[in-house]
Amino acid sequence: MVVRYCGGVSPRRSADEAAVTRQQILRTAVSRASCVGLEGLTIGALAHELEMSKSGVIGPFGSRVELLSATLAAAVTTFRDAVIAPLSECEPGRQRLERLIDVWVDYLVDSPFTGGCFVTSASAELDDRPGALRDRLVEVVRSWRGYLAVEIAAAQPDRPEEQIAELVTTLVGISMAMNQDLRLLDDPGAAMRGRQAMRRAVDLPIL
Amino acid sequence: MVVRYCGGVSPRRSADEAAVTRQQILRTAVSRASCVGLEGLTIGALAHELEMSKSGVIGPFGSRVELLSATLAAAVTTFRDAVIAPLSECEPGRQRLERLIDVWVDYLVDSPFTGGCFVTSASAELDDRPGALRDRLVEVVRSWRGYLAVEIAAAQPDRPEEQIAELVTTLVGISMAMNQDLRLLDDPGAAMRGRQAMRRAVDLPIL
Repeated sequence: MVVRYCGGVSPRRSADEAAVTRQQILRTAVSRASCVGLEGLTIGALAHELEMSKSGVIGPFGSRVELLSATLAAAVTTFRDAVIAPLSECEPGRQRLERLIDVWVDYLVDSPFTGGCFVTSASAELDDRPGALRDRLVEVVRSWRGYLAVEIAAAQPDRPEEQIAELVTTLVGISMAMNQDLRLLDDPGAAMRGRQAMRRAVDLPIL
Repeated sequence: MVVRYCGGVSPRRSADEAAVTRQQILRTAVSRASCVGLEGLTIGALAHELEMSKSGVIGPFGSRVELLSATLAAAVTTFRDAVIAPLSECEPGRQRLERLIDVWVDYLVDSPFTGGCFVTSASAELDDRPGALRDRLVEVVRSWRGYLAVEIAAAQPDRPEEQIAELVTTLVGISMAMNQDLRLLDDPGAAMRGRQAMRRAVDLPIL
């Protein structure tokens, strides 16, 4: 077998570089999409910001839809790393629910995305646009809501099931309103108020 | 004084027609903007849908920004007519808060906007885009939140002020999460769950 070396770059190094390029594209795409929406992301603008050709931007993903889908997945990974990963230190139960509210509120205040909560923006944008991207977003939202339901049930095992579903809606809602308080109204009391509102909803002591 | 008649149309009739045209443009603009966002609204697409020239669409407003601002104002008028106007029959207090929750939930379920809650979409879109349109949206959101605070305070005069602000965040949030339940997740239980969640938040009896 003849192994071809292209311009002195080994296949291994070339694969590493491809992975780095993919990550760079995704980082820029997530940041831009948090401002202009997923569908608002144009390959031209991305290529311009990355100083790459349009085909260089699309190449690692195959198509624009796959690039947008990978962008959503990258945003979800960021969320999981920031909000879900730190909880693994706690046993499921009341303390862990308390910790979940804390890291979630901190995450919203100190958002890694230029444009604020990525999934809330994507949801408002895509809810009436059927397609693969909306389907993927529905999975993401359902998965997070399912996770919240499990955490609430572990903390408060006596709650009937429909009340847990209702509390999931309330907590998700408070996170959305808090995002509006923070990003649109520039309200300095937003974080404390959102934290108290979440704690009151699930009967945790008010701070 | 010479009154000029243009093509046999009286000035009065011409003014009426201009008002009708303006309303037609705004109706179409509100409907499209609820799907593609306010900034996503292009004069070309509007002109195409209305079978008018681009200058005919812009004309009654003077500029694109003024057209977008009038579109936001028209959406707010629709909301006021549907949610605030019916409350004038009730005295401020507990019953009126109950009625407010009912008409608000009904309005979200039976949204007059193709793309669901107009202000939630606009908020996710404009929160990081400084300008006259964002300023106008901030006023709209502040005004609605102020209205809610007055209604909660009238129904529950013993609540301390910061708790009322917190409940406003919770109610606004539940409306947003319910909008996601309805439009993104197509959840048939969304309306009942949202109504119960709002009632529970302000200590109204659960249905």
